[in-house]
Amino acid sequence: MGRASKREEIAEAAFRQFHARGFNATGINDITKAAGVPKGSFYNHFSSKEESALEALSRYAETLRFDLLATPDLPPLERLRAHFEYLSRDTVDNGFVRGCLVGNFGAEIADHSEEIRVAAKQGFDAWAHRLGAVLAEAQAAGDLDGSLNTETIALFILSAWEGTLIAARVDKSSAPVDAFFELVFERILR
Amino acid sequence: MGRASKREEIAEAAFRQFHARGFNATGINDITKAAGVPKGSFYNHFSSKEESALEALSRYAETLRFDLLATPDLPPLERLRAHFEYLSRDTVDNGFVRGCLVGNFGAEIADHSEEIRVAAKQGFDAWAHRLGAVLAEAQAAGDLDGSLNTETIALFILSAWEGTLIAARVDKSSAPVDAFFELVFERILR
Repeated sequence: MGRASKREEIAEAAFRQFHARGFNATGINDITKAAGVPKGSFYNHFSSKEESALEALSRYAETLRFDLLATPDLPPLERLRAHFEYLSRDTVDNGFVRGCLVGNFGAEIADHSEEIRVAAKQGFDAWAHRLGAVLAEAQAAGDLDGSLNTETIALFILSAWEGTLIAARVDKSSAPVDAFFELVFERILR
Repeated sequence: MGRASKREEIAEAAFRQFHARGFNATGINDITKAAGVPKGSFYNHFSSKEESALEALSRYAETLRFDLLATPDLPPLERLRAHFEYLSRDTVDNGFVRGCLVGNFGAEIADHSEEIRVAAKQGFDAWAHRLGAVLAEAQAAGDLDGSLNTETIALFILSAWEGTLIAARVDKSSAPVDAFFELVFERILR
């Protein structure tokens, strides 16, 4: 097994472990064990646990199906709904565990690691920007009140989604997710 | 110093440490050091770190100023706003750190400790119930559309608040808090 593939296995294992356990509960040992590599090999590829957490955030972003926000020939608000429906199914089908890695790191680590805070901020900013662009499209198409501030709504919807995932994990039910869809799509964006 | 006051100091230190550091980053040693008591004395009063975390959730709930939801002679929606304005000031004035202990435990621990998950669920349920009661009062007073489901709105507002705190900590700005007030009070409850 070459160096490059070991790095890939360690990076992917780190992402999975951080997502399942959180930052502080994940040891380097958990990561290398899950990757099936010797513990010492972690430091051949990452200078610190923090560095592997930054890469985990990038890997997580790739799972968020932003492509659903850009499906051709679908009205903007239907694309927005499809994006959150995908994320909802992922949570419901997995038994309401893990939540969002960006939000988890935000809750657990943002106060204590400036590097991780900044990476989480970039993740949220990029996500909110994508949501805001779809909302602006909806306004241009006449599907959304043109007087609304799409950036503010995008920021709020993303915050609400992050809290919804925590509430669903705590409640072990889809009630918070159902409330999110009802209020966002039937009240805020109606 | 008597037993009872040592217990109080340990319990209060545990709450402060969990709120500032999170569950996994807080060691028994951090708690007893902050309380100014010998490490071994922790186990004279608590059977486990988890047990002190359950008490921390109760102590946190007492800081949430639920009394602001019941101020006499103030319209229901103004009481709701005063409650969240108090919580917002607390976050802004503290430099966007710590967030909500219930949400933090939800994000970090709910998947891993059934006892803490259930306690966090009870905390959210009681909080949402109080918010829902104020919304029902607003409906009765004719200040809120009577066709809205107040329990669903309460659940959503609480989720949105939890996510807003995480976004504010990540952004180190009040922008997510401002978006919360604008969308909740000017759009959802208008």
